[in-house]
Amino acid sequence: MSDFIYGRWPVLESLRAGRRHFQQLLIAEEADEKGIIRKIIEAAENREVNVRRVPRRIVDDLAREGNHQGVVLRASAYRYVDVDNIMTISKERNEKPFLLVLDLLKDPQNVGVLLRIADAVGVHGVIMQERRGVGITASVVSASSGACEHLAIAQVTNLVNTMKKLKEEDVWFVGLDIGPHTQTIDRVDLNMGIGLVLGSEGDGMRRLVRETCDVHMTLPMRGAVDSLNVATVGSIALYSAWQARGWEGWKKP
Amino acid sequence: MSDFIYGRWPVLESLRAGRRHFQQLLIAEEADEKGIIRKIIEAAENREVNVRRVPRRIVDDLAREGNHQGVVLRASAYRYVDVDNIMTISKERNEKPFLLVLDLLKDPQNVGVLLRIADAVGVHGVIMQERRGVGITASVVSASSGACEHLAIAQVTNLVNTMKKLKEEDVWFVGLDIGPHTQTIDRVDLNMGIGLVLGSEGDGMRRLVRETCDVHMTLPMRGAVDSLNVATVGSIALYSAWQARGWEGWKKP
Repeated sequence: MSDFIYGRWPVLESLRAGRRHFQQLLIAEEADEKGIIRKIIEAAENREVNVRRVPRRIVDDLAREGNHQGVVLRASAYRYVDVDNIMTISKERNEKPFLLVLDLLKDPQNVGVLLRIADAVGVHGVIMQERRGVGITASVVSASSGACEHLAIAQVTNLVNTMKKLKEEDVWFVGLDIGPHTQTIDRVDLNMGIGLVLGSEGDGMRRLVRETCDVHMTLPMRGAVDSLNVATVGSIALYSAWQARGWEGWKKP
Repeated sequence: MSDFIYGRWPVLESLRAGRRHFQQLLIAEEADEKGIIRKIIEAAENREVNVRRVPRRIVDDLAREGNHQGVVLRASAYRYVDVDNIMTISKERNEKPFLLVLDLLKDPQNVGVLLRIADAVGVHGVIMQERRGVGITASVVSASSGACEHLAIAQVTNLVNTMKKLKEEDVWFVGLDIGPHTQTIDRVDLNMGIGLVLGSEGDGMRRLVRETCDVHMTLPMRGAVDSLNVATVGSIALYSAWQARGWEGWKKP
């Protein structure tokens, strides 16, 4: 089955990453061949991908409701990795494990935003519960600005079992949660091998996932509206963790 | 002129905050009178707002493209405050100024997300450049989950002049930026009277606004996709600042 990746940055990053098999690049007839469109065409030519100019309505159709900006890339399905591959990345970089764990998130926008931050802070990989949660669809690719194409993402059938196995490899699971049993984010030592665990919008983590976490961390709130979006909470937690690691791997410009 | 505020939480928070004059609450005929809809009707009755059941297509029309969830509230325009009011809030709370400054952001979604976080961390107020940037439209109310109804927000005609005046009241302006002249977020003392300044999507702060900042702060990035959304950057900076203030004003549950 093919995916239709849409949007300028998502398409460019997909071609750059080269993780998929690309069948065709479709560009709306009106799109000028300059700037990022020029880069996209060059990237496609480098990978020997067929480039076709088509009427805008064809691009509209293939991108469904998506904001395609005149570009659609027909590609093979997203290639997930195994959890072992993720742990290998950690070892190869000689860094303590730094993982993002998503338990049944539903909103492609949230998942995309989180993957973009996960890439920005250099996590070794992302682990997602298979089925019922969102996978790496074209909307997720788009919301992540294509960042997911560069990330190692594993889908697992039983998240709790995976967490238990990883605990034996010195991964400490930090679940983002609310309630009196939680510790505020500044009280948790994030400079260790960690997996940050986020639950679904509204419901949070499932009970067994929550119980499998080693620590429950919270973000204080003082305003009138007492809830935060899961993508916001996750972004702040990911950056706090990377800061605690001293911006490990950062090349200051 | 009337605003049509849509969506369950945005409508409920607007009624709770009571900052506007409310003309009518319109509820789609199919929406069951229970849960949050029940709360919305009660809140409307408390404020003596006329409640009307209408066919769904009327709600669709009034909310335009918005995700209204069967509820639209017709209300007077958003009431901005003066910068002086914001400084009074700071003094009344006996806290060093904590401000968010938005220089011509364009995307209602970004502005809404930022206002929701600004409320969560308890900023004293938000200052926005008037014209050309986004104001508090129904989409912004919605994207903020109604948080903007509880916030003190000022629109100013000349942001640079406002910043200069506030410097005399011991506000230190911290501009989020990129480049070699910046300091990483962990190197900036945020436990002082501050205004966090965010520039527009793509272009960043305007030159004079940038030059008026006292310090330029950056978030490191190490991934393949080297940009972050302004709402993400702002969220992380707002939380870092509040953490530096020791979660001032937080009532631990």
